[in-house]
Amino acid sequence: MHHFFVEPENIKSGKVIISGSDVRHITSSLRLDVEDEITVADGAGNKYLVELSSIEDGMVIGEIKDEILKEVEARVNVTLVQGLPKSKKMDLIVQKCTELGINEVIPVETKRTVVKLKDSKAKRRVKRWQKIAKEAAKQSGRAQIPKVRRLMKFKEIKELLEDYDLVLIPWEDEVQIKLKDVLGELKETENTKNIMIIIGPEGGFSSKEVELVKDAGAYSVTLGSRILRTETAGIVATTMVLYELGDLG
Amino acid sequence: MHHFFVEPENIKSGKVIISGSDVRHITSSLRLDVEDEITVADGAGNKYLVELSSIEDGMVIGEIKDEILKEVEARVNVTLVQGLPKSKKMDLIVQKCTELGINEVIPVETKRTVVKLKDSKAKRRVKRWQKIAKEAAKQSGRAQIPKVRRLMKFKEIKELLEDYDLVLIPWEDEVQIKLKDVLGELKETENTKNIMIIIGPEGGFSSKEVELVKDAGAYSVTLGSRILRTETAGIVATTMVLYELGDLG
Repeated sequence: MHHFFVEPENIKSGKVIISGSDVRHITSSLRLDVEDEITVADGAGNKYLVELSSIEDGMVIGEIKDEILKEVEARVNVTLVQGLPKSKKMDLIVQKCTELGINEVIPVETKRTVVKLKDSKAKRRVKRWQKIAKEAAKQSGRAQIPKVRRLMKFKEIKELLEDYDLVLIPWEDEVQIKLKDVLGELKETENTKNIMIIIGPEGGFSSKEVELVKDAGAYSVTLGSRILRTETAGIVATTMVLYELGDLG
Repeated sequence: MHHFFVEPENIKSGKVIISGSDVRHITSSLRLDVEDEITVADGAGNKYLVELSSIEDGMVIGEIKDEILKEVEARVNVTLVQGLPKSKKMDLIVQKCTELGINEVIPVETKRTVVKLKDSKAKRRVKRWQKIAKEAAKQSGRAQIPKVRRLMKFKEIKELLEDYDLVLIPWEDEVQIKLKDVLGELKETENTKNIMIIIGPEGGFSSKEVELVKDAGAYSVTLGSRILRTETAGIVATTMVLYELGDLG
């Protein structure tokens, strides 16, 4: 079934109003008609089964037939802090992590980040990643659109840490503590709700950076014995966290 | 440390002979010299720490200093049977699954495969994917290069099933059995060594195809409530299997 997002204010009194470019998509590309069913979400976690009731120029109106239970969203909130990678890897990371069920992505500049973005370019990039997140959320039938936050400096991340129950920083120099061990222990307690995963750029983190967040309570972990590219590490760590603590798989 | 693959016959009497394009890479691009250390694997599971002892035109010779334990390879062998996807998605799947630690990839034509490759083109593609697997194995420091097998028809897969201890076919119409449940049960027994994961192309599998392999002992499973693209499903299912039964994470 085709899935769309609308602003929360466009859902009221059992009706949904769809406007903008989605109208042309519904009428011209998909050739949907009155009585056809779609799903609609408000991007904040609510998702509905909707029957189209009126199609006019520039506006489609539908009636809510049923509320789709929120189980389409993961039980835990995962934030991925991603060291800015080269080329279009961030597009891939945002798309795949959205499908997996991530809550938030924060691109970050670290000591070894090669790509340097000026303010205006960084803003355009964030806008583009936010668009990718929306498209991927639509495609994967999510009720929520992950938020892509502004490009931050690494030291700003430290200030955010207190909002999280668990902060993981996969690091190639960590050989003792496995991600699996940390997740295995936490599974028992079941009150881990907000999780942050911090992934370095191509060159990895400096020890100083790792110490900075470890001092604030983060766990440095290994993802195993094979070297993963930066974009693989983000997708794979998110998969393992959502598999163990969320609902993936 | 830089990592290279050589043919098994080029490793003997404690020495390693590197020839071909890797020589230029070692001397011109990396500017390595005698006494520098590299790692070398034979592609079949053996990996060594090597000190360069002689650099000549067209040939680099090194001495084996140490055997690197095989723990760089996963404890289980995973074969991914991947419904041929559109565009360059197969490149991504082969690259990422190699980093994760896969053993073998089999591209497969199914009922709903859109891309049709003629024999000669299919052979060229397989060659290209094999090259991507080698590059990714090198980059991730593996001792083994995953094998990319020829493009098969779906019904041929059935014949291979008896060689596997566990065959998983993620399917969107499966709502009861979760991948996690199947893996959780198997973890207890610990004699699961050879695992096959079968992933559909963009349009998914037909019920007939799923029945065909289920009749031969495969489990149809769900990967969760969010819809994953075909290339995401392959990477994510491989991640979860290697996390639960192998050594990933």
